[in-house]
Amino acid sequence: MSGADIRKQLAVYLVMGLEPVLGRSPVELAGEALSGGVTMLQLREKNLPLSEVLETGRELRELCRKHEVPFLVNDRVDVALLLDADGVHVGQEDIPAVYARKLMGPGKIIGVSAGTPEEAEQAVRDGADYLGVGSIYATSSKADAGEAIGTALISEIKERWNVPQVAIGGITAANAGPVIQAGADGVAVISAITRSTDPREAAAILKKSVMSA
Amino acid sequence: MSGADIRKQLAVYLVMGLEPVLGRSPVELAGEALSGGVTMLQLREKNLPLSEVLETGRELRELCRKHEVPFLVNDRVDVALLLDADGVHVGQEDIPAVYARKLMGPGKIIGVSAGTPEEAEQAVRDGADYLGVGSIYATSSKADAGEAIGTALISEIKERWNVPQVAIGGITAANAGPVIQAGADGVAVISAITRSTDPREAAAILKKSVMSA
Repeated sequence: MSGADIRKQLAVYLVMGLEPVLGRSPVELAGEALSGGVTMLQLREKNLPLSEVLETGRELRELCRKHEVPFLVNDRVDVALLLDADGVHVGQEDIPAVYARKLMGPGKIIGVSAGTPEEAEQAVRDGADYLGVGSIYATSSKADAGEAIGTALISEIKERWNVPQVAIGGITAANAGPVIQAGADGVAVISAITRSTDPREAAAILKKSVMSA
Repeated sequence: MSGADIRKQLAVYLVMGLEPVLGRSPVELAGEALSGGVTMLQLREKNLPLSEVLETGRELRELCRKHEVPFLVNDRVDVALLLDADGVHVGQEDIPAVYARKLMGPGKIIGVSAGTPEEAEQAVRDGADYLGVGSIYATSSKADAGEAIGTALISEIKERWNVPQVAIGGITAANAGPVIQAGADGVAVISAITRSTDPREAAAILKKSVMSA
């Protein structure tokens, strides 16, 4: 995965679970979002039985392949391996990036959440392919997301390490501009797409606001 | 792993987390329990950061090797792989046994929890090396353990599949006899050892009551 490739792929990064949202199944939702221009997709499911995660995850992976969009799994490296995912995204409490890399192999994408300069530095040292930086704004999608940190860390990371980074936390088409201008390569969203009445259009509008920023 | 070996190894099976219990560190506790005669050890930690699980897990694995006792990891196949564990134990909501086998390889132990004949049948079909059958008695160690089922399922499993099985749930030296007489190869315990004032003696007494049943 070259640095240039991954920066483009981070533009509009959809993080989603497998519970139906607004009556839409995860496969329907992902299909709509990918058609709208989502450039990377992460499966983040903490509650459902893993048999179901593996079954539906396989469908999402196939959809992503069809759209030539990387498919990542949150936290569970074992699930990522079984789904032949393109990578794994780990938080600060998950398997450290160096070990995730060891299991996944050199060709896969390893993303790491960072909310402080120290966490960013460690992730860079551990060989993360990109950082998920946040929470930028206040968010209701993730109970343990921590306090909003604004865009300062994005600029700092850009300046100090210039590692690919995607901003996450409360981002919408209306407030995506400042995070891109601060140095993020893209935005990661949950509800801005999953809770939209038209996920395809929501993805398209987000992409537009990222591209024009 | 031959069937005869694993039946012996199931005799006194300690399931433990990594939080200190009664002021004892997990490594101290495991050391005492292994000296007292524990024959298999499972690391089951759901709350701590995985960096810590990997670090302390490595110490537990080394201890188990020194005592020539199999070391298993609960649920997380990725953690089991990173710790080079001897196997993995999966519950009904975890990665299905066939997939756990696929990741772990043929030489490793795959244990599966079963609380009904249907779950036992599926686990046998999936190639489980042993079943963890329960909860036998009422237990306070595991919030999601379900209702106590008594020993009838043990007898049924013994008769229908004769697969190695360890009984779990509320088992102590005082009530271990009936589960062995019903056909279990051993007993899995958490608090009977971890909450004992003398874990070494608790393990020794449990072993005696299993052996004499």
